Amino acid sequence: MRSSGLFGGLFVPEAVGEATSDRAWVQAMLDFEAALAFAEAEVGVIPSEAVAAIESACSADRFDPDSLGVEARAAGNPVVPLVKALTEAAGEDAGRFVHWGATSQDVMDSAAMLVSLRARALIDTDLGRVADACARLADAHRETPIAGRTLLQQALPTTFGLKAAGWLDGVLDARERLAAVEMRAQLGGAAGTLASIGDDPLRVVSLVAERLGLAEPALPWHAQRGPVAELGAALALAAGALEKVALDVALLSQVEVGEVAEPSGGGRGGSSTLPHKRNPVGSALARACARQVRGAASVLLEAMAGEHERAAGAWHSEWAPLTDALALTGGAASAMAEVLEGLEVRPERMAANLSATGGLLMAESVTMAMAADTGRLEAHHLVAEASKRAADAGRPLRDELMDDDAVRERLSPEEIDSALDPAAYLGAAPELVERAIQRHREQEGRQ
Amino acid sequence: MRSSGLFGGLFVPEAVGEATSDRAWVQAMLDFEAALAFAEAEVGVIPSEAVAAIESACSADRFDPDSLGVEARAAGNPVVPLVKALTEAAGEDAGRFVHWGATSQDVMDSAAMLVSLRARALIDTDLGRVADACARLADAHRETPIAGRTLLQQALPTTFGLKAAGWLDGVLDARERLAAVEMRAQLGGAAGTLASIGDDPLRVVSLVAERLGLAEPALPWHAQRGPVAELGAALALAAGALEKVALDVALLSQVEVGEVAEPSGGGRGGSSTLPHKRNPVGSALARACARQVRGAASVLLEAMAGEHERAAGAWHSEWAPLTDALALTGGAASAMAEVLEGLEVRPERMAANLSATGGLLMAESVTMAMAADTGRLEAHHLVAEASKRAADAGRPLRDELMDDDAVRERLSPEEIDSALDPAAYLGAAPELVERAIQRHREQEGRQ
Amino acid sequence: MRSSGLFGGLFVPEAVGEATSDRAWVQAMLDFEAALAFAEAEVGVIPSEAVAAIESACSADRFDPDSLGVEARAAGNPVVPLVKALTEAAGEDAGRFVHWGATSQDVMDSAAMLVSLRARALIDTDLGRVADACARLADAHRETPIAGRTLLQQALPTTFGLKAAGWLDGVLDARERLAAVEMRAQLGGAAGTLASIGDDPLRVVSLVAERLGLAEPALPWHAQRGPVAELGAALALAAGALEKVALDVALLSQVEVGEVAEPSGGGRGGSSTLPHKRNPVGSALARACARQVRGAASVLLEAMAGEHERAAGAWHSEWAPLTDALALTGGAASAMAEVLEGLEVRPERMAANLSATGGLLMAESVTMAMAADTGRLEAHHLVAEASKRAADAGRPLRDELMDDDAVRERLSPEEIDSALDPAAYLGAAPELVERAIQRHREQEGRQ
Amino acid sequence: MRSSGLFGGLFVPEAVGEATSDRAWVQAMLDFEAALAFAEAEVGVIPSEAVAAIESACSADRFDPDSLGVEARAAGNPVVPLVKALTEAAGEDAGRFVHWGATSQDVMDSAAMLVSLRARALIDTDLGRVADACARLADAHRETPIAGRTLLQQALPTTFGLKAAGWLDGVLDARERLAAVEMRAQLGGAAGTLASIGDDPLRVVSLVAERLGLAEPALPWHAQRGPVAELGAALALAAGALEKVALDVALLSQVEVGEVAEPSGGGRGGSSTLPHKRNPVGSALARACARQVRGAASVLLEAMAGEHERAAGAWHSEWAPLTDALALTGGAASAMAEVLEGLEVRPERMAANLSATGGLLMAESVTMAMAADTGRLEAHHLVAEASKRAADAGRPLRDELMDDDAVRERLSPEEIDSALDPAAYLGAAPELVERAIQRHREQEGRQ
Repeated sequence: MRSSGLFGGLFVPEAVGEATSDRAWVQAMLDFEAALAFAEAEVGVIPSEAVAAIESACSADRFDPDSLGVEARAAGNPVVPLVKALTEAAGEDAGRFVHWGATSQDVMDSAAMLVSLRARALIDTDLGRVADACARLADAHRETPIAGRTLLQQALPTTFGLKAAGWLDGVLDARERLAAVEMRAQLGGAAGTLASIGDDPLRVVSLVAERLGLAEPALPWHAQRGPVAELGAALALAAGALEKVALDVALLSQVEVGEVAEPSGGGRGGSSTLPHKRNPVGSALARACARQVRGAASVLLEAMAGEHERAAGAWHSEWAPLTDALALTGGAASAMAEVLEGLEVRPERMAANLSATGGLLMAESVTMAMAADTGRLEAHHLVAEASKRAADAGRPLRDELMDDDAVRERLSPEEIDSALDPAAYLGAAPELVERAIQRHREQEGRQ
Repeated sequence: MRSSGLFGGLFVPEAVGEATSDRAWVQAMLDFEAALAFAEAEVGVIPSEAVAAIESACSADRFDPDSLGVEARAAGNPVVPLVKALTEAAGEDAGRFVHWGATSQDVMDSAAMLVSLRARALIDTDLGRVADACARLADAHRETPIAGRTLLQQALPTTFGLKAAGWLDGVLDARERLAAVEMRAQLGGAAGTLASIGDDPLRVVSLVAERLGLAEPALPWHAQRGPVAELGAALALAAGALEKVALDVALLSQVEVGEVAEPSGGGRGGSSTLPHKRNPVGSALARACARQVRGAASVLLEAMAGEHERAAGAWHSEWAPLTDALALTGGAASAMAEVLEGLEVRPERMAANLSATGGLLMAESVTMAMAADTGRLEAHHLVAEASKRAADAGRPLRDELMDDDAVRERLSPEEIDSALDPAAYLGAAPELVERAIQRHREQEGRQ
Repeated sequence: MRSSGLFGGLFVPEAVGEATSDRAWVQAMLDFEAALAFAEAEVGVIPSEAVAAIESACSADRFDPDSLGVEARAAGNPVVPLVKALTEAAGEDAGRFVHWGATSQDVMDSAAMLVSLRARALIDTDLGRVADACARLADAHRETPIAGRTLLQQALPTTFGLKAAGWLDGVLDARERLAAVEMRAQLGGAAGTLASIGDDPLRVVSLVAERLGLAEPALPWHAQRGPVAELGAALALAAGALEKVALDVALLSQVEVGEVAEPSGGGRGGSSTLPHKRNPVGSALARACARQVRGAASVLLEAMAGEHERAAGAWHSEWAPLTDALALTGGAASAMAEVLEGLEVRPERMAANLSATGGLLMAESVTMAMAADTGRLEAHHLVAEASKRAADAGRPLRDELMDDDAVRERLSPEEIDSALDPAAYLGAAPELVERAIQRHREQEGRQ
Repeated sequence: MRSSGLFGGLFVPEAVGEATSDRAWVQAMLDFEAALAFAEAEVGVIPSEAVAAIESACSADRFDPDSLGVEARAAGNPVVPLVKALTEAAGEDAGRFVHWGATSQDVMDSAAMLVSLRARALIDTDLGRVADACARLADAHRETPIAGRTLLQQALPTTFGLKAAGWLDGVLDARERLAAVEMRAQLGGAAGTLASIGDDPLRVVSLVAERLGLAEPALPWHAQRGPVAELGAALALAAGALEKVALDVALLSQVEVGEVAEPSGGGRGGSSTLPHKRNPVGSALARACARQVRGAASVLLEAMAGEHERAAGAWHSEWAPLTDALALTGGAASAMAEVLEGLEVRPERMAANLSATGGLLMAESVTMAMAADTGRLEAHHLVAEASKRAADAGRPLRDELMDDDAVRERLSPEEIDSALDPAAYLGAAPELVERAIQRHREQEGRQ
């Protein structure tokens, strides 16, 4: 996925697109080279005079990603041509000390982590927007009854607030997992022993990591790809949490359900030929993003098993999927933030749908109203029979219950009506909403 | 995966890159619009005067993929802005008849198939290069002994020619499967009924398909994604067949094995810091490509289950992975073609490695030489004991066998020596090589 | 997935479960050993006296899969303990000739193909039931109007028959692909050279294949895993075609849509606590099966790249996922056969839902009615405006159209009414239905 | 993957097999029902007299998983028949209160977490064995030189201890991630509102969680599948870390490398026909397990997007893959524990292989020895030239260096010899080993 173009522009918002662009990769690679020069000069591995020239050459604008890509083919990675070009750009004196003692993978891995660190911040901002929007919806609709649906069938009433609180809970989990991924600097030299980086190479590693804002690794991880695979998994988990929301929004937006609608300004969701349509286009894009993130994450998980000190292919397979996973998780988050921030909520349609089953939806409520005295099994039996008669006859359940002597022995008409009121059978929905909102507040507070 | 850039340029050869570029997609979309106008005019749905203007506007150079991508965000696909722009480009009179009766998915799906058709031809050319190179290696080394290795242990001798014939067989299977994928035109209108395409819409479908060189579909397949998923699977199978070759080449290239080496001209396979290295970089790139193709194919397989007449997300998830799968299968094929065409083969190292086990590799041969008379179990037992003694003592198996009375009762010294000669225990290797070469010739002849 | 047990019994029908059971695997392994003995005796590699004893020992009832599994751990595959046990079972004389010249992978691969061949026949039977049921639904509802839905929004009318015809088309594709997978016998000996199988080993291969009803391979394919990976892909494609149907059935079954319902006899689809529910349980199970088939297929695709003449792990990774892919594709096919054979279709709900948008669904029809004279763009504009007014005011589109002078200039009231009739805007739906049914008939005829 | 049988017995060790068996699932489901009864009695939702009878009926031995599986087909999950059977088993009085207010998914999800909790402990024990063995190898071989290999080519010397320390580091990461997965109890009732569980349902949730040793969820997570998907990802990450070790062991075990060998007692690693073979069978099994875990994890990640309050298929798709992922991660951990605990290490082969390139492996060392004075580029150039001459002539690099005036101007013979000594160019390998061992100690201390 590119940061722009026919599909990049469609799926990936501009900021994340830029943060995962070729240019961003090149800059991150250069940031590593600059940090390495700085650190090596600090420790006396290279002369301090070289640092300024190297640092000033480390600007992505000086290098052309398209050329680097083509030149990379001979060596199998873009570091070799970039170091060559940077060595020239740094001038004769400083150029000798460019990339001192480092190996290509030190550059690529550190750059991958830098790109990830920067993109994650943008993704998290959009996840925060999604969480805020969910929290607002949860708060506003704590007690707005809606049909709870299991296996796509109406089961029992719940509240739209609890539904949104569930989305929120999933997104909060996702943010925690993503934030927990450690972005590690990489520096080990060609075989991971740091043999080529002076007398105190561990200090150089430490300084490089600090300079880049990355975690200092216990060991070089050229051949232990957990950090990348874990990031892929965390992105897939975040995308999955968003995909869940997108799926629910798309389902609630169906003409026949009509309980929510995506925002529609600016031609959004329109069809080229069907003027009346209001497609859940943000949800569709988010779902498409999430699926692609999963595909990318599967490549990253497979890349964990690489040969010896550097893999012949598994490592190379990470770069594009990692970029895609970041860009498209960003795409999913941004799409759902837009959807939820402008979501049109229709409590009246929720209420109307709640009565679509003629009260059958309240069967458990009636059962429970009887069960304490009668026992669950018998209550269940009585209600099941009445429900069946109601369904067969197309009558409201209320009528069947009122006409049923065995029921009437146990419940008064008032008790029946109360048991049939969705708003009276919401259980702990409001408290659960509050928990989710509280959890969101705490997570925000920690950041 | 873009057709160019830091990773696109690295993994994807120029021709396939161009064939799967944004520009190629836009041109394919325009080709559909032109074919549609032509067909509809033929059948009288739109005036024939409109065709020339539409056709002449249908040139990708007129449209900017980056802008289309951004504008696509509102509608969720790039067809809406493209049709808008094309309508303008075609002029007032003809513009009214652009995209007549079609739906966005008609355009995207037909374009996807066109892009695939064109890219497949390029991929097949490189698969053909791979097959040719395998056939040449198989032919030249029909009887060149090499250790057959199972579970990465030397098992028995085989020939390098048979190894190459196995690669060839896998690639021939892959070409057949890929060639068998039917590329279907798409035309159904907004709900797949063709209601908006005049009185003889099936004729329009037929003409559009013919004009585009695509297969005529029995039914619109907006919601039956088998054609796309099957293509993804066929690409993954082709990439997998190439990955197998790449893995073997990388393993045979190990310093300690040294039986082949990738071509090394022009700095290829060099390391930035290790001048002596000759990395199997083509194989590494091919393996990296294949893994990404698999990731992309998994998205396409998942996309089969889409909602009703057009999916809300599953469909959108296909475009980039299909593009990647084509581009990267092309990348793997091209990389392995280069590798195999220039492969350095070292029969002397093969021979040296065959003696690495001190003859233990020939244990089965000795067993078989005795087994007809002695029975497999007893022969096996005698050879196993001798092998164990040889391994423990670090002596050649020959010495142990010659010193073993039970063996000598059954085999003469000459028979022992013959049984220990790898070149005398190659079974049907040459005939099997011939079969593979023959199969390749027949496949070529059919094309 | 076992053939029985808590989840096996839930997802896998009995016949496919049995055909993919441990017992079925053991029998298939024994069938190979018997066929090998037969073929080798024919060619004179082993004495013909041994054949009867070996054949009669080759009955799965004699061997305990649980013990074989545990004993298999030392060698890494179940062939080693099975051959040991079979050698004993065949008696001293014949035992010596058991498994003559074969390698473990010859047995496992041939058995895998045999198990697959047998399971495929059962799967295809259930796919045939699905196809028949789709064809009946398509036939019965060629002209039954239903809302065509794109991105989960009502777009245009189509017919339920065309919907079922689309399902059918997908299933027919799937059957063709699955039937096209060649099930190849495997025989190559330890390194694939056939060195251990007498003087005419290719004849032995041919006889073994014929005896087993498997295809004769051009070459041993121990290390070319295309045949297995292709089978995995074909199963995933079949499962995906079924999953599409299952998704549509589940969506159409929603309380708010109510256009179909799964059969409900015998407590099917009931809930433990909600007596009124009628869950689309067959569709849910089919969807669950399909997802698992995809996961299994991804393992098989990854297994293509194995080392040298036999992979150290990739090969071993195939057995359980292949078994699962077969069993669960069978599960999906069986579940959907039951669903479709008993599907309750509700044309009256389809009709009611078609009017849910107050005629907006017919916007394209009205546009088209005007477009020939007016041009698509202007017609589109007029209808879009009327649609917008209708949606905003909650009025039927008909009223807006009738009140709109610009519309009335172009269409008479009769033309407006005709353009608003879903049954009059079904395009080629009936012809397309006929095509699918015809294709089904032809496929059946070929079998 | 079953806990026993042809493939279960092969891949899954007995303890993890038992912990993930059908019986273990049934017991976990019953444990939930018992905990629910206890908790509901505590809070007064059901009479306390019912608890003992329910608890005593909650023994897996009373129920037959095979029958439950078949009966589960009607309802789509095994809870419905189990609750029915349990209700009977608990007797008339207590039976009325079985499963009070709970929904099937409460039972399945809580049981899934219980099974996971129990299996994770076993997996972690085997991961601990792997870590211990890695730590011992790292400690014993801190300074044992071995060729560092990148892209499967010898690059530079490292130590076998550092190699093992890298494995250890990967396993420690994996253990941390797996331990961090929160196992959440599930209780929400049919729509997740807890409406059916008395007046203080949140207290019931809390008590159930405590009783089961699971985490108390903030909200019911019927439709937020992060907890399951995250577990799947953590298992795939653990399996991936093991797969990396297995791959290295298999590669180091190659006949031509011979630097380690798997333990071989008891027929382990033997071949049916090749008596000399010592297959890396434990590594092969571990690799096969890891691939299957990834396939299973991909299903769990896909299952995150489920419809509304309970998914129609996505949920059902979790059970078998979760079971497989646990069992097979256990299989991989157990296999590698056996491999590493008995690993035969051959420093003499490591030393011999280090000289295979005639000193070319030390090129960087020589470069670095010159580079401080000469500059990296010129030093690199001199060494590259000498290396090329050495490679072309088949001479040792030492001879070329000694004969090269430009080199001799900069380095004395002693300096050249020192620069060519692998043991003198190990960089920070020993310190890095110490870090990994220290990290392992700390992790153990925390447990």
